[in-house]
Amino acid sequence: MSSDALLSPLTVGQVDAVSEEAVLEALVRAEIGLVRAWAEVGALNDDAAASIAVALGWNAGAGRAGDHGIDAAALAEDSVAGGNPVIPLVPLLKRRLPPEQRSWVHRGATSQDIVDTALMLLARAAVDQVLARVEATEAVLGAFAREHRDLVGAARTLGQHAVPTTVGLRAAVWLAGLRRASARLRGLVLPAQLGGAAGTRASFHELGGGDAAAELPARYAQVLGLDDAGAPWHTTRWPVTELGDALTQATDALGVFATDVVTLTRTEIAELAVSDGGGSSAMPQKQNPVRAVLIRSAALRAPQLAATLHLAATDAADERAGGAWHTEWPTLLDLLRLALGASAHAERLASSLRVDKQAVKRNLALSRGLILAERLSLVLTPLIGGDRVSQLVAAAAAGADLGELVRALPEARSLDVDALLDPAAYIGESGAIVDRLTREDPA
Amino acid sequence: MSSDALLSPLTVGQVDAVSEEAVLEALVRAEIGLVRAWAEVGALNDDAAASIAVALGWNAGAGRAGDHGIDAAALAEDSVAGGNPVIPLVPLLKRRLPPEQRSWVHRGATSQDIVDTALMLLARAAVDQVLARVEATEAVLGAFAREHRDLVGAARTLGQHAVPTTVGLRAAVWLAGLRRASARLRGLVLPAQLGGAAGTRASFHELGGGDAAAELPARYAQVLGLDDAGAPWHTTRWPVTELGDALTQATDALGVFATDVVTLTRTEIAELAVSDGGGSSAMPQKQNPVRAVLIRSAALRAPQLAATLHLAATDAADERAGGAWHTEWPTLLDLLRLALGASAHAERLASSLRVDKQAVKRNLALSRGLILAERLSLVLTPLIGGDRVSQLVAAAAAGADLGELVRALPEARSLDVDALLDPAAYIGESGAIVDRLTREDPA
Amino acid sequence: MSSDALLSPLTVGQVDAVSEEAVLEALVRAEIGLVRAWAEVGALNDDAAASIAVALGWNAGAGRAGDHGIDAAALAEDSVAGGNPVIPLVPLLKRRLPPEQRSWVHRGATSQDIVDTALMLLARAAVDQVLARVEATEAVLGAFAREHRDLVGAARTLGQHAVPTTVGLRAAVWLAGLRRASARLRGLVLPAQLGGAAGTRASFHELGGGDAAAELPARYAQVLGLDDAGAPWHTTRWPVTELGDALTQATDALGVFATDVVTLTRTEIAELAVSDGGGSSAMPQKQNPVRAVLIRSAALRAPQLAATLHLAATDAADERAGGAWHTEWPTLLDLLRLALGASAHAERLASSLRVDKQAVKRNLALSRGLILAERLSLVLTPLIGGDRVSQLVAAAAAGADLGELVRALPEARSLDVDALLDPAAYIGESGAIVDRLTREDPA
Amino acid sequence: MSSDALLSPLTVGQVDAVSEEAVLEALVRAEIGLVRAWAEVGALNDDAAASIAVALGWNAGAGRAGDHGIDAAALAEDSVAGGNPVIPLVPLLKRRLPPEQRSWVHRGATSQDIVDTALMLLARAAVDQVLARVEATEAVLGAFAREHRDLVGAARTLGQHAVPTTVGLRAAVWLAGLRRASARLRGLVLPAQLGGAAGTRASFHELGGGDAAAELPARYAQVLGLDDAGAPWHTTRWPVTELGDALTQATDALGVFATDVVTLTRTEIAELAVSDGGGSSAMPQKQNPVRAVLIRSAALRAPQLAATLHLAATDAADERAGGAWHTEWPTLLDLLRLALGASAHAERLASSLRVDKQAVKRNLALSRGLILAERLSLVLTPLIGGDRVSQLVAAAAAGADLGELVRALPEARSLDVDALLDPAAYIGESGAIVDRLTREDPA
Repeated sequence: MSSDALLSPLTVGQVDAVSEEAVLEALVRAEIGLVRAWAEVGALNDDAAASIAVALGWNAGAGRAGDHGIDAAALAEDSVAGGNPVIPLVPLLKRRLPPEQRSWVHRGATSQDIVDTALMLLARAAVDQVLARVEATEAVLGAFAREHRDLVGAARTLGQHAVPTTVGLRAAVWLAGLRRASARLRGLVLPAQLGGAAGTRASFHELGGGDAAAELPARYAQVLGLDDAGAPWHTTRWPVTELGDALTQATDALGVFATDVVTLTRTEIAELAVSDGGGSSAMPQKQNPVRAVLIRSAALRAPQLAATLHLAATDAADERAGGAWHTEWPTLLDLLRLALGASAHAERLASSLRVDKQAVKRNLALSRGLILAERLSLVLTPLIGGDRVSQLVAAAAAGADLGELVRALPEARSLDVDALLDPAAYIGESGAIVDRLTREDPA
Repeated sequence: MSSDALLSPLTVGQVDAVSEEAVLEALVRAEIGLVRAWAEVGALNDDAAASIAVALGWNAGAGRAGDHGIDAAALAEDSVAGGNPVIPLVPLLKRRLPPEQRSWVHRGATSQDIVDTALMLLARAAVDQVLARVEATEAVLGAFAREHRDLVGAARTLGQHAVPTTVGLRAAVWLAGLRRASARLRGLVLPAQLGGAAGTRASFHELGGGDAAAELPARYAQVLGLDDAGAPWHTTRWPVTELGDALTQATDALGVFATDVVTLTRTEIAELAVSDGGGSSAMPQKQNPVRAVLIRSAALRAPQLAATLHLAATDAADERAGGAWHTEWPTLLDLLRLALGASAHAERLASSLRVDKQAVKRNLALSRGLILAERLSLVLTPLIGGDRVSQLVAAAAAGADLGELVRALPEARSLDVDALLDPAAYIGESGAIVDRLTREDPA
Repeated sequence: MSSDALLSPLTVGQVDAVSEEAVLEALVRAEIGLVRAWAEVGALNDDAAASIAVALGWNAGAGRAGDHGIDAAALAEDSVAGGNPVIPLVPLLKRRLPPEQRSWVHRGATSQDIVDTALMLLARAAVDQVLARVEATEAVLGAFAREHRDLVGAARTLGQHAVPTTVGLRAAVWLAGLRRASARLRGLVLPAQLGGAAGTRASFHELGGGDAAAELPARYAQVLGLDDAGAPWHTTRWPVTELGDALTQATDALGVFATDVVTLTRTEIAELAVSDGGGSSAMPQKQNPVRAVLIRSAALRAPQLAATLHLAATDAADERAGGAWHTEWPTLLDLLRLALGASAHAERLASSLRVDKQAVKRNLALSRGLILAERLSLVLTPLIGGDRVSQLVAAAAAGADLGELVRALPEARSLDVDALLDPAAYIGESGAIVDRLTREDPA
Repeated sequence: MSSDALLSPLTVGQVDAVSEEAVLEALVRAEIGLVRAWAEVGALNDDAAASIAVALGWNAGAGRAGDHGIDAAALAEDSVAGGNPVIPLVPLLKRRLPPEQRSWVHRGATSQDIVDTALMLLARAAVDQVLARVEATEAVLGAFAREHRDLVGAARTLGQHAVPTTVGLRAAVWLAGLRRASARLRGLVLPAQLGGAAGTRASFHELGGGDAAAELPARYAQVLGLDDAGAPWHTTRWPVTELGDALTQATDALGVFATDVVTLTRTEIAELAVSDGGGSSAMPQKQNPVRAVLIRSAALRAPQLAATLHLAATDAADERAGGAWHTEWPTLLDLLRLALGASAHAERLASSLRVDKQAVKRNLALSRGLILAERLSLVLTPLIGGDRVSQLVAAAAAGADLGELVRALPEARSLDVDALLDPAAYIGESGAIVDRLTREDPA
């Protein structure tokens, strides 16, 4: 359980991928990967590498480095003196090996190689999970949009009824935001890090010779299922900021969906309801859109965390920054958690949505036709001029019947006023846009 | 252990005041406080209130509500459905009482009353601890500043040597920033919350009558050792933002100190050393200023968290916001942790500082007198005009001996050039400013 | 006109206090103030100081330094090389004086003294104006709250109807947020800066002797109507961050008001209308709450700008930071503009509010009594137990008549059901809270 | 001149692409583009469209819409009432046409179509300019890195000497960050906006029929040289956030370069100097790295502005948000200005860099060989064990001669100690990495 579980309902049960246990496993896996990479470049034979891996904690069945037997809490305490957990981790790992094999642990590496690589391993797993959740949400919203493709309702701008739209188009627009965000998540480069003490890779060169050193980074990345950045990125932190930006783009898109749900479930609007609304400790009648509320809380927090990553990136001074690098770790983990939590709840929120067609219809009629004022203006201005259109709209706003006002216009005699004032006849490309945005394989 | 302990060495061992256990205790204490407040206004007799308190978990010896027997992890899981932990907490607490007493639990309250109050209880304890740590740092820095009051060294602006200053003045300026920050922490208003479902206090009125309802909030605050805000602050979130701002002001000031330490311990500058520097996993010679680095990481993170609190505050819509309120919880806890961690390390960092007087002297001499160029300009311009001063400075910058150049000036014959070029004679009010800033009881 | 005027309708016409012209005037005024301070400490006679002031641009009638004849655009261009406008300003000012008086310009000062002091002069004027506008808003909202003290309407939490409240209480809560913010603005310390090249004041000491140097900073502050910080604050930037925090607290409070107005003017809710709503380029019927929308845009921007000021503050390294200081200038000016714009529109927005009592009543009735579910629960639970209350509420939510359900309860026979279900009888302390919060002279 | 020119030396003279004049031109160009798009879909003949374009301000020679004759200041004032400049712009443009052509202006569009499109036009021009400046910086840094490919110096981590590196590698790493950022800028999608009042495109359908309405958006984008988003993006704001993220990635990378320059030009380090350093108003000897300082100020501001864009994006509620949209405009313009200013100064900063090889050599020798402690540890540990290596390093740190200590080791007799302690022999892959990163056409 996270230490903020009680006051972070968003993430409870959703963030195992970045739990303390997962962090420790990733650190150990990053160290094991290095042993394997040395074997890949021929410096160590494969059997020895395999046996070292198992001794360090590799569990082939699980495909994880979980059998390390290391106490995370004790390791955390020991990490304070040097400012990172790798310094005390290395001797703990060495102790698990016979003396003659110990020099293969952390061979040539610096703490930053392991921490950065571990963060990318965590990111890889977490992003995959976020992607699966977002894609599931997309599927539900796509079906929702298609189902309500032609259900006409009021569009609102600055809170005011504007023109007609469709419930399906609104959902398709949510979907469009999610799809752009998931595309960006899919396109992320999550590289392993292997630069040695200061990005020159001198230690690998010293220990393995030039050919091995040249090949080692790519093999390291490959062994761990990560990307190869081509060069050390100790102080060029785009892998971190691009990750943070993409996660925030995901929470942005989830937040738009959630914000609209909070609005549309308002008691006075009530076009949507959630089938699993939350209760209240005081008010027994309430059905709060809790998932939407929790998603919104993620969307409000993520941008500032992404900003912190950018600040750390630009403060990545010298060959390793004093402070900026340490800033990234908890910030990135928090961002991953927000995206995991928000996407988990979004999937369920999307599935829980119920449309109240009566409410949609009732709201659409609230302005007694004025929601078609734009159309009237387009149609009538050529006939009676803009000034008279304004007077007519003002009269309707003051209470007059819009249809009667139009029918009373001699210039409008040839118009089919019922058709003109039919909201369903003024939704333009809504259906076509829904069709395009909900195509299963968008270009 | 926090779930980010392994990758947050800043806070390891420093943040018990805001651990998950502490959060749960604060929630229970907030509920117990309400029972007591009802007794204070005469609705319940004192003995009954005392026995309820004990049954709910009050431990008089510890002065804490730690004997509640509630499983935090299970509670966290149950908090998701309603979006906050109070909803499942209330029945758990009630179950600890005989049926006839159960109605006194959470009597008239809404979840927000309890969560907000619990956060303020946590803040009260954490801020007190931060204050103690900052004040201890102030004491050490004050002594340090007085000790080095007259040790002359180079002042640097935009990275370049500017004029002489003193090591003591630099430390006194760190102290001044800390003192302003601690004054602001001391001045914080940390109020209890008691508004009922929507800030009208109708439930308290219904249950206790008008007189009791009018008195209850102040008694609630008093029982818990918190301030009385005078009115519910469900949607006026200044208690949260003022707290966030003050914590950030503290990390700002700690960060200035830490940033200067990172600079002054640089290998090339080396005017300061830390006696407990951290090691490296790769480079055995290194003595990294780890505490300073960790403090800087707090200072880089805090401002964006405070910004999130402001965003939540301004989004505190309706009578309770959907999302904004939930945003505050983990953000505020994080800020408290950053201040706790940064202040803990600052105290030790201040105590670990060692001045290398030789390095101070060597650096001061680096520009071969040009650090006194401003003084020369002030003294010589009336004698030889600004243009010739510029030529003289340029000649010295190009390698000429500054003293010889000045002595060669006929117009400067009456000047004591040695005294003129003595850095110790050009430190202005430094000593007086140190004296004023390090007074034990600053006005 | 600001260069962003076309795309910053919030600030058009509202930010003369921080225009480019005002910035230049403040820089010149800061220089003139220094001349006067030298006269105050006896280094220069008053007549000479007065004539220098006039020559530099002082206009006694206007009480401003507007007659400097300096071209701002040319000065701006010349400011790039040195990174600040004071470097090229000083020779321009000197040129306005006879040679023998020129040494009194910028005497002993560094660029930072003048820029920091000028920013505080700008802040002083801008904050006073913000305060006047916020106080005017407070007056209007106070009257509004008193007028609608007893107008009962629906309170909403997480978007859902919760319990009854009053229109007056909602407005009184807006007022409470504003009052706290304006108190903080009134309490700001806005100090002059006078530290010399690196905060030692050595130059002032050199030029004026110890007594004059000791006295000069306080006199400088006094002459300019600014506070005396007691010590140079070149690298202890609390005057800037406290200002930024207070301005943001103001936009927070204004933003809450604006956000509620945007909600309450929604077509479906319509409890409020603005008498001067904005039009649309497409939809002739619209009455957009434009002022509220613009205020919200300020409230969304301010927190991140305040965060930037904190980041600059904690990066205030050495005796003058390379970059952090320069970061503050445009950021602080932007924050001042946001507060000026938001407060200007808030005053007019408050005056433009119209309550639609029919809509308030209609919305209150929307849940057909369920808005009193909390009260029913409080009253009925002792009589019939919590489970049966839940069933009753569920039945009402499913469509049954709540009053009939209650009347049908044998256990409730003695209750006055009409009174029980009267929203006006369940508003608790609302009236008293309004009275307290709207007192003209709150303690 | 921008209204912040005097206190924003970063941007003076560099931001014509986003001046007020450019904003107005872009708005007019967006309107003219719509007229042309109508002609492209066959609704208007080309000659009429061309003559309307000229009447509205199109200047074919300049390829800009600069001949509109509209007073920006007056337009700005008129933009307040409706909250955007398009509302008053449309009648001003119509007035430039004979009555029978007026209906072609703003035909079917809403204000958001024009403002969003204008912002993208501004972004297109500004991003192209940023790209040109960044690419020019890349070229200079690439040459610099190749020139100093083999110049060995000290690498620093957490401020402390770590291992040897090369001056060329450091510059190649700056280059790598810039190249990633410029690739992202090149990959941006900057779409036109054409959604009509609420994203349904009903107005275009009404006015032009289905076929024309379907085709119009793509033609609109094409006419303006912008991308086609495929659907309206009124409330899916990734075009804005992706732009903000990419601009921030650019200032991040520029900031790393600038931060290192500020460090490396420090008086005590002095490995780099800038040939056009800035002066001081107080200290005549100073050569401040002003351009680096100004770039840093941009890098410190950009992340929070990008965060504001994300917040606005996730608050893009309903079919047009009340406040969030308005938040974007000045924020995006500021970000474009920061990137323009930072890239302009970076190009010149890169060109102004001078390496002091003596200082590089002197600093490298400062630790009297301990900078090779890692290498010693790698080589000696197998021979004498880790504990004795630590003792040896400690002895050297305490003052002993490192070479003598090693030579005294019986186990090390076969080692070539001079070669072992030669920094140039411990730079690993530095040269190869420089070669790869400075290739003119990186994969």
